[in-house]
Amino acid sequence: MSAELEGLHEECGIFGVWGHPDAARLTYFGLHALQHRGQEGAGIVSNDNGELHGYRGLGLLSQVFNDNSQIERLKGNAAIGHVRYATSGSGTVDNIQPFLFRFYDGDFALAHNGNLTNGRQLRRVLEETGGIYHSNSDTEVLMHLIRRSSKRTFIEQLKEALNTVHGGFAYMLMKNDCMIGALDPNGFRPLSLGQMTNGAYVLASETCALDIVSARFIRDIQPGELIIINDDGYTIEKYADNTQKAICSMEFIYFARPDSNIYGVNVHSARKRAGARLAQESPVEADMVIGVPNSSLSAAAGYAEASGLPNEMGLVKNQYVARTFIQPTQELREQGVRMKLSAVRGVVEGKRVIVIDDSIVRGTTSRRIVQLLKEAGAAEVHMRIASPPLRYPCYYGIDISRTSELIAAHKSVQEICEFIGADSLAYLSIDGLVETVGLQEDAPYGGLCVAYFNGDYPTSLGDYEKEFLESITPEDKERLTRFA
Amino acid sequence: MSAELEGLHEECGIFGVWGHPDAARLTYFGLHALQHRGQEGAGIVSNDNGELHGYRGLGLLSQVFNDNSQIERLKGNAAIGHVRYATSGSGTVDNIQPFLFRFYDGDFALAHNGNLTNGRQLRRVLEETGGIYHSNSDTEVLMHLIRRSSKRTFIEQLKEALNTVHGGFAYMLMKNDCMIGALDPNGFRPLSLGQMTNGAYVLASETCALDIVSARFIRDIQPGELIIINDDGYTIEKYADNTQKAICSMEFIYFARPDSNIYGVNVHSARKRAGARLAQESPVEADMVIGVPNSSLSAAAGYAEASGLPNEMGLVKNQYVARTFIQPTQELREQGVRMKLSAVRGVVEGKRVIVIDDSIVRGTTSRRIVQLLKEAGAAEVHMRIASPPLRYPCYYGIDISRTSELIAAHKSVQEICEFIGADSLAYLSIDGLVETVGLQEDAPYGGLCVAYFNGDYPTSLGDYEKEFLESITPEDKERLTRFA
Amino acid sequence: MSAELEGLHEECGIFGVWGHPDAARLTYFGLHALQHRGQEGAGIVSNDNGELHGYRGLGLLSQVFNDNSQIERLKGNAAIGHVRYATSGSGTVDNIQPFLFRFYDGDFALAHNGNLTNGRQLRRVLEETGGIYHSNSDTEVLMHLIRRSSKRTFIEQLKEALNTVHGGFAYMLMKNDCMIGALDPNGFRPLSLGQMTNGAYVLASETCALDIVSARFIRDIQPGELIIINDDGYTIEKYADNTQKAICSMEFIYFARPDSNIYGVNVHSARKRAGARLAQESPVEADMVIGVPNSSLSAAAGYAEASGLPNEMGLVKNQYVARTFIQPTQELREQGVRMKLSAVRGVVEGKRVIVIDDSIVRGTTSRRIVQLLKEAGAAEVHMRIASPPLRYPCYYGIDISRTSELIAAHKSVQEICEFIGADSLAYLSIDGLVETVGLQEDAPYGGLCVAYFNGDYPTSLGDYEKEFLESITPEDKERLTRFA
Amino acid sequence: MSAELEGLHEECGIFGVWGHPDAARLTYFGLHALQHRGQEGAGIVSNDNGELHGYRGLGLLSQVFNDNSQIERLKGNAAIGHVRYATSGSGTVDNIQPFLFRFYDGDFALAHNGNLTNGRQLRRVLEETGGIYHSNSDTEVLMHLIRRSSKRTFIEQLKEALNTVHGGFAYMLMKNDCMIGALDPNGFRPLSLGQMTNGAYVLASETCALDIVSARFIRDIQPGELIIINDDGYTIEKYADNTQKAICSMEFIYFARPDSNIYGVNVHSARKRAGARLAQESPVEADMVIGVPNSSLSAAAGYAEASGLPNEMGLVKNQYVARTFIQPTQELREQGVRMKLSAVRGVVEGKRVIVIDDSIVRGTTSRRIVQLLKEAGAAEVHMRIASPPLRYPCYYGIDISRTSELIAAHKSVQEICEFIGADSLAYLSIDGLVETVGLQEDAPYGGLCVAYFNGDYPTSLGDYEKEFLESITPEDKERLTRFA
Repeated sequence: MSAELEGLHEECGIFGVWGHPDAARLTYFGLHALQHRGQEGAGIVSNDNGELHGYRGLGLLSQVFNDNSQIERLKGNAAIGHVRYATSGSGTVDNIQPFLFRFYDGDFALAHNGNLTNGRQLRRVLEETGGIYHSNSDTEVLMHLIRRSSKRTFIEQLKEALNTVHGGFAYMLMKNDCMIGALDPNGFRPLSLGQMTNGAYVLASETCALDIVSARFIRDIQPGELIIINDDGYTIEKYADNTQKAICSMEFIYFARPDSNIYGVNVHSARKRAGARLAQESPVEADMVIGVPNSSLSAAAGYAEASGLPNEMGLVKNQYVARTFIQPTQELREQGVRMKLSAVRGVVEGKRVIVIDDSIVRGTTSRRIVQLLKEAGAAEVHMRIASPPLRYPCYYGIDISRTSELIAAHKSVQEICEFIGADSLAYLSIDGLVETVGLQEDAPYGGLCVAYFNGDYPTSLGDYEKEFLESITPEDKERLTRFA
Repeated sequence: MSAELEGLHEECGIFGVWGHPDAARLTYFGLHALQHRGQEGAGIVSNDNGELHGYRGLGLLSQVFNDNSQIERLKGNAAIGHVRYATSGSGTVDNIQPFLFRFYDGDFALAHNGNLTNGRQLRRVLEETGGIYHSNSDTEVLMHLIRRSSKRTFIEQLKEALNTVHGGFAYMLMKNDCMIGALDPNGFRPLSLGQMTNGAYVLASETCALDIVSARFIRDIQPGELIIINDDGYTIEKYADNTQKAICSMEFIYFARPDSNIYGVNVHSARKRAGARLAQESPVEADMVIGVPNSSLSAAAGYAEASGLPNEMGLVKNQYVARTFIQPTQELREQGVRMKLSAVRGVVEGKRVIVIDDSIVRGTTSRRIVQLLKEAGAAEVHMRIASPPLRYPCYYGIDISRTSELIAAHKSVQEICEFIGADSLAYLSIDGLVETVGLQEDAPYGGLCVAYFNGDYPTSLGDYEKEFLESITPEDKERLTRFA
Repeated sequence: MSAELEGLHEECGIFGVWGHPDAARLTYFGLHALQHRGQEGAGIVSNDNGELHGYRGLGLLSQVFNDNSQIERLKGNAAIGHVRYATSGSGTVDNIQPFLFRFYDGDFALAHNGNLTNGRQLRRVLEETGGIYHSNSDTEVLMHLIRRSSKRTFIEQLKEALNTVHGGFAYMLMKNDCMIGALDPNGFRPLSLGQMTNGAYVLASETCALDIVSARFIRDIQPGELIIINDDGYTIEKYADNTQKAICSMEFIYFARPDSNIYGVNVHSARKRAGARLAQESPVEADMVIGVPNSSLSAAAGYAEASGLPNEMGLVKNQYVARTFIQPTQELREQGVRMKLSAVRGVVEGKRVIVIDDSIVRGTTSRRIVQLLKEAGAAEVHMRIASPPLRYPCYYGIDISRTSELIAAHKSVQEICEFIGADSLAYLSIDGLVETVGLQEDAPYGGLCVAYFNGDYPTSLGDYEKEFLESITPEDKERLTRFA
Repeated sequence: MSAELEGLHEECGIFGVWGHPDAARLTYFGLHALQHRGQEGAGIVSNDNGELHGYRGLGLLSQVFNDNSQIERLKGNAAIGHVRYATSGSGTVDNIQPFLFRFYDGDFALAHNGNLTNGRQLRRVLEETGGIYHSNSDTEVLMHLIRRSSKRTFIEQLKEALNTVHGGFAYMLMKNDCMIGALDPNGFRPLSLGQMTNGAYVLASETCALDIVSARFIRDIQPGELIIINDDGYTIEKYADNTQKAICSMEFIYFARPDSNIYGVNVHSARKRAGARLAQESPVEADMVIGVPNSSLSAAAGYAEASGLPNEMGLVKNQYVARTFIQPTQELREQGVRMKLSAVRGVVEGKRVIVIDDSIVRGTTSRRIVQLLKEAGAAEVHMRIASPPLRYPCYYGIDISRTSELIAAHKSVQEICEFIGADSLAYLSIDGLVETVGLQEDAPYGGLCVAYFNGDYPTSLGDYEKEFLESITPEDKERLTRFA
């Protein structure tokens, strides 16, 4: 909840299908299952015998595709789609993906989940030699690299381009004769392959989108892999030499849907184990456990079971969206907060409660939650966070833009506890996180990226190196050996 | 979930505030907390120094009030509002409440939650003597009765009218100089009084709407009571002699929000106790308990704790609305169902699961849930329903229009179990329901209405008597002593 | 143009068809041809084998019926429709007609063009005996009178009601088994009967709406007549004894479309004759004649032909609507005016121009027109108005609410000329108007109502008597013998 | 009217202002005056101290800018805007101009009125070397050429690019420090410079847009000229050597607003002279002259004055737009046509009428007009067209895509007369057109392009040469000496 309310946003979700007469509609379904990964724009491009048709718009999927005719027009046996979280200031339809490019030698569509660390540099170089961009995003860079490549075949051009871009990316591409997925050498973002009963292949950011179209899971795309799907089936190639799995741990903690599996690990179960571990690491005497809905209910169940305390519904989330323009006065603003979350007086009154939340970003939401519970009569409020403290920005696709906004970058756990007004506060340890996710990869942190917790980024930071160094403390600089 | 998906709808929610300069905005907030009681229309009437202003429309609150100016125009220190579930065929704005009447001697607004059992008769009599109606609802009947009363004062006219209408009703009325609430002699619908810190009084269908505006709960309006609020405070009068509490048990089972208290009983806690009781009444050997989100999570927690089984997230509800017009083909229709609910393969695969749901209406949703879980690999699916079988229609404000649509009216529990494809099925007993709600009123069924379970209606059925008798079996007729 | 820009509005247009399978669609077409009579709301009620279906909304016809499904749902072989000009403050959908009433003994729809002079009195009396209203308009009064009548048959009840209401009215009613039109005893508003090739009968405010559905004109409904159309054909009855034709002269001057005929007189031709007469009454030496588009082009053509001067396009009207919210600064406001009307420099520069306009209400638009032409280089601007000075309000259905807003009520022609900055100004005489319309009825003013020019109202003023007497000068009172 | 109804569309209108604090709002006003040049999309880009902000959308200006906030966000002292007619199949927002490009070295906006004859070739060459396009239009080509130029300064790069593109173009460009207009070497499209009282400079497709913002006309941009406007004022340069004026004669005949002046010639006056010339060239005995509203009213006035016949309003155009989705049955389709145009029975019945129209494209509209008039009782209908027969496509910016759609390309005047059902038909001669426009340029056809009438294109046809040669007759090929 804190992650959600305090602006920790995923950049995107992608979905594609090859080999089904209802491809665009299936893509709509798939994107619907991925809507939690981006709510500010959506688009679909279909492949109609080699000719691509596209439609995209701002807002939720149901707002963009608000008329059956939009899907109807996207004819063809293959389609790719994208849901986007738009960073502020870029909220124009020009940035909504998939991007559709039309060339004399064919149409081309491109969708991207992630963030490049050398996007700015590449864009500059390309502009200096005549490159023209229509969007703010660095997604177009890949298209320019492909078109300028001197390699002979398209796949060779693509591989060259994929080796030129750095950072976090899951790309989905549609050409007249094939659909392609590609993952960066660290595999920061998940991407899974499935197959429908009619034989159609499906690629999706999460397995929950395979389920919604009743596709059978085949395998996860691995770091540095490229998958090419056409009418003959699929082939997977490794395009990069140095790969090392470092999947975004926030996928397990907050972003991914609980029904998704990532590299074989069910997200709900991982969260429940994290909650149980948190109970072991940071027990506290209390009457009940309360999860902040909806994202922290799994961890709360784990904490409750491990601690032997009852798991109660002490906070209720309003399932209906309130208009933000109903601008309250200062007095009413406080009441506006209550429109999203309510404390259940009948449950918490006079009780010592342990509140489980997924994370703390700025701390303002946690403070409100504590306040709501205390106003509803809770005797004690103990906050337990099912992830380590967020201290550093992410440069691979999560919108944690500035260190200065992260409360744990500047305050100790005790100071945060005071700020939010809780009776006690504890976070899960990094070891606890790694072990309860349990990927068991032969890689640092068991194959997880935990850079936002400890600054240990698995790649060079490229465009961001300078601003990162300026934002951290001298102690950090010394500690982070990679900068030695 | 089954109740939600299978068309068991509440008719309305009402809210009013007297004595706050931001009355219309507070009413918007209050209705937001009551949105679950009606999603097909909303309206607000404000009282601007005796002159009433109204705005209403079709759809969710956020669709009706989609522009700040609409609230801005509703000036005044008092307001009442209404969210409505529109029965099919009547989906025009004419039926959206509050109704606003303008007379030479003042304006008048009226909102209604419930259903009259003698509405048709009264309407007919009134029409025969020149009465004119603008809506299909029987809400207007009260206004006609008031205006035709020969009593001297408005309150006397109102009392006469309230004694003339029969059935289930919570009325909210706004006049130039007062705001009025009134409850039927059985108190089928909840209605609670609260007070804000500035002294303003608030009336609402549920206490969760008091909480959202930070109003302190004062008391529940009791059956047969009339509350008049004006600038001097409030007065409560009993307008009816024969009252007997029979609050709708579906409020506890499904309709009300878990954070609401009804006659002092917290809804979440009552549901949790019902789940625990269900575990005692109908235990089964299994690996885990799964609640159907969101309405059955409380009962599932109760069942899990009582049975000692882990409470798992085996079903996930998609929080985003999908466009219904995205009409799938027959093959895709099955997938369309998955857009609302997903089974979590990583949790249920190979496991024996107990699924807790709030109720079964037609049975089609339960069948799909069982199917989803089995497809996701569940070894056994045991369905447990946290309420008794629904067998009879409600005539007091819930939209269970026809006995023929209720699967339990025609099939035995064993037959239903076969229909939904579960490995076992059990319902909560009526005694179990009454005891776990625990109102402890000196009234039949502890003050609950359980007529939809056993046909024992607490009032005569008036307009509906004939159709009810035609719809039931001879055995029923014999059993139901009231028809003796 | 001045009439249009300065707020001289018709109240409504009505249309009905009986006996065609596409009745609602034809009604849409008919209302489209009548859109100039009201742009702020529209509605259609169809008769589907005795059951009435309705749809209505705020705005232009194309905004209200913005989706084919709305028309599709209005099934049936008969329909009536209405376009409305909503007076300020009453802009809610509740006031949009036709009103649809549902009674135990059948549905009923009612539409009204005009204004009652005893509407307030009747409403008060009806309210005092229990009558309830949903709209601000006095249209509902007729329905109440019908329903309360003690007469035996519906037609007798209707006739009684029609004799009870006074003022200006053309009513259109739809019942399960017939469609009815009725005109007040003075026939202030036009209403014409036509027949389609398939035999269907059509009633419309103007003959241009008969033309759009290719209906052959049969006859005008006469003052005090009632027409009943059913499957057997039509019958016309006289329901009132004292009738005297006094058709609104503004219909000829401004409201009606030039292609309509009223009582056999073509509106364009009448305007052209008025322009010619104006040339005789008020000639002036000049280089060209300019009509203010679009309403004054006919009169300008008449003036030009009679004077022998060329008829030039010296003013151009922008056919596209500009958003009024594009709020200009004070400097830009002047430019905003130019968005509706432009002077043609290439035509008027250095020329002496005669500008023909239909009327002057407040005078502000005329002032701007003179200014536009002078800025474009016109050497002289002579304003000629093709109607007499507007001095008194209309109580029969035109929105001239207050004498105080009419410049000619307070200023002499010479003073108005100075106010608008013209080099000369002249109006058509009342005699000129009467003779050029040329109805040749044996009635005062040849069958025209000219009350807004001379205060000689053809009926008592009822509700408005007092405010009229207070608004006029002592000289007026003496002159107007009816008040003697 | 025929031009309008039969799909003869202008491609665009452009407008720009430099040096006014309300630049975007003024651009809205200017585009409003140019709305007749394109109704399917609109956009504005403002220059806020060197940073460009843009907004664009599909539909009319009032639909795109439907909220004041959109204009409010376009801050800055300069702005350019564009209204677009979108050719079928390309109706996506991607093609709406101005295009906004963001480079590391600054933002850039570009708008284009016209059509390139070598756009396809250039696009192909640019794509082959890595160029990427986001729209279907060939407007982007100019941007690519500029960015790839090896010239040193931006103006030199621009001049090189302008000399590389061929065909018809009026470009408007916005950079951080200047606003630029450029016209092709033939000046197919008009572009005029004006100045506001505060000193701000304005460039617009037509002078009517200067008038709407009260800008004083300074001069027309001449063929092959480039105008650069910045804070120091404006400079005009000739960028091309071989220029020859060939302004599109359809601007005078149909496209431009009657209040605009093109190269000093008032459009209304030119049309009126054309009508008078037509009366001399093709007189006929009749009772009256009727102009098809609105575009042919000037020519009708000229014909009437020259022939001494009265100019009557025999056809009325409905000023309100009807929804096209109100799909009539075959029977009703005929009536649907009447929703745009009505014949005035009261005027034409029994009369011999001369109908003046601007042009005939497919002939279907003319046929309907004749039919409407005959049904309304006209005794004879003589059609007179105020332009020569349309026989060839335009490649410079008018949407006459195919010869096969032009009735005069395949039928003689006599055959067309029979097709439309008129009693006689005559067109204006090319000489008559040239002389009545009267530009008196020392250039073929007096400086007009008349290629759609006689195939004499003033430039090579580039991309279109092959398809043109295939579409014409052998006689044409022989006649057209340029192909010799």
